[in-house]
Amino acid sequence: MTRILGIDPGSQRTGIGIIDVAADGRCAYVHAQALVLLGAEDFPARLGLLCEGLEALLEQWQPQQVAIETVFMDKSATSALKLGHARGAALATVVRRHLPVSEYAPRLIKQSLVGRGAADKVQVQHMVRLLLNLADTRLQADAADALAVALTHAHMSATAARSGVSAALMRRR
Amino acid sequence: MTRILGIDPGSQRTGIGIIDVAADGRCAYVHAQALVLLGAEDFPARLGLLCEGLEALLEQWQPQQVAIETVFMDKSATSALKLGHARGAALATVVRRHLPVSEYAPRLIKQSLVGRGAADKVQVQHMVRLLLNLADTRLQADAADALAVALTHAHMSATAARSGVSAALMRRR
Repeated sequence: MTRILGIDPGSQRTGIGIIDVAADGRCAYVHAQALVLLGAEDFPARLGLLCEGLEALLEQWQPQQVAIETVFMDKSATSALKLGHARGAALATVVRRHLPVSEYAPRLIKQSLVGRGAADKVQVQHMVRLLLNLADTRLQADAADALAVALTHAHMSATAARSGVSAALMRRR
Repeated sequence: MTRILGIDPGSQRTGIGIIDVAADGRCAYVHAQALVLLGAEDFPARLGLLCEGLEALLEQWQPQQVAIETVFMDKSATSALKLGHARGAALATVVRRHLPVSEYAPRLIKQSLVGRGAADKVQVQHMVRLLLNLADTRLQADAADALAVALTHAHMSATAARSGVSAALMRRR
């Protein structure tokens, strides 16, 4: 069994989703939540909240692998910069624990879960619910996106294992 | 005496400059270097190197205050994003040690050291050398910029103390 922590980084809210992947590839929901960063007094303090929250979750749930969304670059430089800060702080927190990190583009996540790179958020969240048996569970949007990236990592790793190539190589295709 | 650590964040090289400020406002050079991040195998690993290097320096030199350059936004979204990652990782490392962080815009740093917001890098580095008695010392460019932001923080704090307003308030003027 492998425990995967997915991160959907954001400077206002960062989504966290944790799943367990069994040897046969079946995925089970473990935990999901959004770290809300808006209460902090300034932007550095927000990044501090993000790191502390993420560290507490890493400590509590002990994931073996981490998956994170890459940034969709159809954004202004200002929002890219803010998002970059959050993503950099999250990556730094993960890397200092020497956890392996895999990065997935939003298109690839949609492709992997819905079968179409242009799928909308509602479809992705629907598939997250379906795959993890969460039909009646309320899921915060960022937490659902974090579960989606964790599921994508599980699928890509399984596909890679079957075809004998590394997941890193798969992502480049 | 107050020890200030200045950071000039970058995703390839991050400059670090440390100075001591005496009660009378005189500044003395303590240490400066660039953390070179290019050797890492991927981008998350680079951020890991940045955090480890910065943490080692915080541990070794025990600064009481940290000053960091804000990002000059006349950049592409792609470079803003990369720079944001580096800056976010650096800020996260500092904030988790509960050190107070002050942010200064490049224009304000130039204004503070050279007297003109449009001063060029050579002039800024010249003033860093002059103020810290480093006439014959070779300074790596990013390290010099980090010393410049540390000196700016020292000047702004002194001005703020004299006029009875906080440095945070000064920066907003």
